[in-house]
Amino acid sequence: MTTIRADLHGTRIDKDAEEPIYRQLIRIIRDQIATGTWHAGDRLPATRDLADELNISRISVVNAYAELRESGLLSAHTGRGTFVAGVSSREPRQLPANALSYVMSDFHLAPGVITFSIGTPAEEFLPVAATRQAMNAVLDRDGAAALNYEEMEGYQPLRSAIADFVAPSGITVRSGQVLITGGTQQAIDSTVQALCSENDTILTSNPTYLGVLDTARVRRVNVVGLPMDAHGLCLDQVERTIHDYHPKLIYVTPTHHNPTGTVMPIHRRRQLLELATHYRIPILEDAVYSELHYSSTPPPPIKALDTEGIVLYASGFSKILIPGLRIGFVIASGVLRERLLSVKSAADLCTPTLNQRTVHYYMETGALGGHLDRLRRACRERRDAAVNALRDCMPRGTHFEVPTGGVYLWVRLPVDGPSAQELHAAAVGHQVTFVVGSLFYTDSDKASGTHWIRLNFSAQPVDRIREGIRRIGTAWHALVASQTPSGGKPML
Amino acid sequence: MTTIRADLHGTRIDKDAEEPIYRQLIRIIRDQIATGTWHAGDRLPATRDLADELNISRISVVNAYAELRESGLLSAHTGRGTFVAGVSSREPRQLPANALSYVMSDFHLAPGVITFSIGTPAEEFLPVAATRQAMNAVLDRDGAAALNYEEMEGYQPLRSAIADFVAPSGITVRSGQVLITGGTQQAIDSTVQALCSENDTILTSNPTYLGVLDTARVRRVNVVGLPMDAHGLCLDQVERTIHDYHPKLIYVTPTHHNPTGTVMPIHRRRQLLELATHYRIPILEDAVYSELHYSSTPPPPIKALDTEGIVLYASGFSKILIPGLRIGFVIASGVLRERLLSVKSAADLCTPTLNQRTVHYYMETGALGGHLDRLRRACRERRDAAVNALRDCMPRGTHFEVPTGGVYLWVRLPVDGPSAQELHAAAVGHQVTFVVGSLFYTDSDKASGTHWIRLNFSAQPVDRIREGIRRIGTAWHALVASQTPSGGKPML
Repeated sequence: MTTIRADLHGTRIDKDAEEPIYRQLIRIIRDQIATGTWHAGDRLPATRDLADELNISRISVVNAYAELRESGLLSAHTGRGTFVAGVSSREPRQLPANALSYVMSDFHLAPGVITFSIGTPAEEFLPVAATRQAMNAVLDRDGAAALNYEEMEGYQPLRSAIADFVAPSGITVRSGQVLITGGTQQAIDSTVQALCSENDTILTSNPTYLGVLDTARVRRVNVVGLPMDAHGLCLDQVERTIHDYHPKLIYVTPTHHNPTGTVMPIHRRRQLLELATHYRIPILEDAVYSELHYSSTPPPPIKALDTEGIVLYASGFSKILIPGLRIGFVIASGVLRERLLSVKSAADLCTPTLNQRTVHYYMETGALGGHLDRLRRACRERRDAAVNALRDCMPRGTHFEVPTGGVYLWVRLPVDGPSAQELHAAAVGHQVTFVVGSLFYTDSDKASGTHWIRLNFSAQPVDRIREGIRRIGTAWHALVASQTPSGGKPML
Repeated sequence: MTTIRADLHGTRIDKDAEEPIYRQLIRIIRDQIATGTWHAGDRLPATRDLADELNISRISVVNAYAELRESGLLSAHTGRGTFVAGVSSREPRQLPANALSYVMSDFHLAPGVITFSIGTPAEEFLPVAATRQAMNAVLDRDGAAALNYEEMEGYQPLRSAIADFVAPSGITVRSGQVLITGGTQQAIDSTVQALCSENDTILTSNPTYLGVLDTARVRRVNVVGLPMDAHGLCLDQVERTIHDYHPKLIYVTPTHHNPTGTVMPIHRRRQLLELATHYRIPILEDAVYSELHYSSTPPPPIKALDTEGIVLYASGFSKILIPGLRIGFVIASGVLRERLLSVKSAADLCTPTLNQRTVHYYMETGALGGHLDRLRRACRERRDAAVNALRDCMPRGTHFEVPTGGVYLWVRLPVDGPSAQELHAAAVGHQVTFVVGSLFYTDSDKASGTHWIRLNFSAQPVDRIREGIRRIGTAWHALVASQTPSGGKPML
């Protein structure tokens, strides 16, 4: 058994650093898990022993262990000690309550680890110089007004620009129907809160976006997920589900669905809208990936077909411009808009002023259009690289569809081989990560995701994509070899 | 009766302007109400007539009227038409459902109107050049990392700086207990959601902060407000209320309470903490004004006395630095911290990255300290100007305490004179606004606020403060004169 003691002793804790000691310790332990210095199931030293060994306070060790347990990297068993989490046999690692935090925790990984997890744009597409220029221009133009509170519904010129931005897709709205939110996630969360009381039900697909599952759990709302096929949500069970569960909201991502990448064809969009309209159940259409299309322009959004105002349309600028500004929006009218505004303003008064005006500046100056073109070209190239690497490196029995847009590949591992959880634990040792499929399924249907993984192909350059997928393939084969009884015939 | 037709005809709608026509119309009507061109009870032209008169589309007029109705400035009576809202007799104007939006709508007022409503710092204290410099420095230093997603709990160096920032008040925490939020409002909203299910109860003071009332209404949580005296929340009914209502949370602002400006003395803080600890009811301590003290340092926060981790401490940088960045925080530990993080991350994934790093830069470079000193000096001068003006211009029977900090004066009008609602409607005609007291009371106790008004004395320079309070006094006297039967003896 490898302990962390050998690696930590002496040199690597810097007591004079600005970084607190417990944070240094967290970083070191994370790096060591990521780089395979030690493995799932290894027992960590007792806090007192490690503190003595490193000549640091015990509370620093306690805090570091506590935070690592929270993030799911360590697990504690009363009376037995603290262990590196993961799989030692076929027992899957316990999924944390907060699915988003599971994905976001990849921020802590060492630079050597190739991550396909978080749904961020590649950092090389985050326009630092242009943002700097835009913010300075806004501050010069608006002065203190750019630092004061903003109108609750959002900066009016931005709302107006968004109304123009969605118009080519067939959505005709006035700026008064656009509400600015803290990213698309707040648009989703506010909609759920505006329309659902506790114990109400949301109807969605299975799998579905992690964030809607987190929101539902936190807001004590139930989720019913219906099956998908290669064309998105299957509609054959929708009407019966409406009768059985009386959902208050239907949540769908018809274009470049997360995680599956599917696009719902126009007839299915129409049919879903007809059902929703007939039963008066609002649809929340998540369009956050709809601008990222690489082959052909997708069908019109459901909102463009909506004549009754029953569709809420949510999107944002995290996937196509700058996630860190946290600017999203939701389009709604009438009483839905009023309820949303009440929820949003109680949530945080208003979305940051300068951030809204910076996004508006991008749109107004036409810079967003050029940025999107470059992003689409790069993402298409990366998708193709990922697809080729999967074909080259993954075992027979691996299955996926080539997505026409978005940033995700949804990949099914051979069903008679290791599970996604097992592969994930092994992959971390090979310095590569992805998201396991079961996270995207509702609680009652987690088992459907056991052999699926999600890869964000947009966040790495082509050579890192190839290398990362090669490592996943290597991890898979190593895992199969280790599970094969010695002398026995390899499983595949 | 004045109609808006005469003023709108011909010149003031610019069809080539970037501002949409209906927004222009909204602005003009707001300005005309604010500048007293016409008055509460005036009937507006029918939409079709006004559209013809101005040669604009009817939908522009319909939209403008609709938005003005939403904001409470107009009211519609089926079959009778659309009217300027307000008081024509003693009937109080209908309070809108969203109290914050009532206050925030003052952003729309014409420049000539002196507003004491919104709780913003004065624009001359918003550091435009320093913010510009800080953001550029952060972008130079961090590059794309300043534009990507941030850790869900917030930027670690900022959390660490906040732990240092609160240390002098006696609060000892690690950065891991600090959670960054979208302003203090999100800290409050997240705490309510983390601790209260629907139909649970929050215990607070009456009056209390508007935002907690809005949050409670939107989240379907009940609020019980207990009386206050000159030393803040009265504790004699707390224990009985705990027995009767089983509150899940106690919300207090012990230092420079909004709206009353009171400071809770140390013995009362201890007593409240003992009760909360005994009954295991978390306290949410709102400390957003605690740095703005002008006489002596206030008593230690309740959190500094808390040995059991039962106090959550919320504050932020909107009142002391830049509201538009929307950076607040909440300090919590153990399971409270975990629940908060789940709620916060489901709400909007994370708080904007660059905004957090900019605030951190202010703190790290020591610029915040100097800024706070200047702000305190200016606010004290403004408070004194407001106090003197109130003594000079308001009628006998007006009552207020001189606050030792914060930004609000809480003023009781003569109880046998016009109500705060009536005075507000009249004051708008005199180009001055404030917030009526009843907004700060729980639904069952709105009547206690009928003769109270809240003035934010910090947002105007001294000469505007004097002029604004002079106008309020003039409005009060004019109102009394108009209510006195002709030939009768003036009321006061």
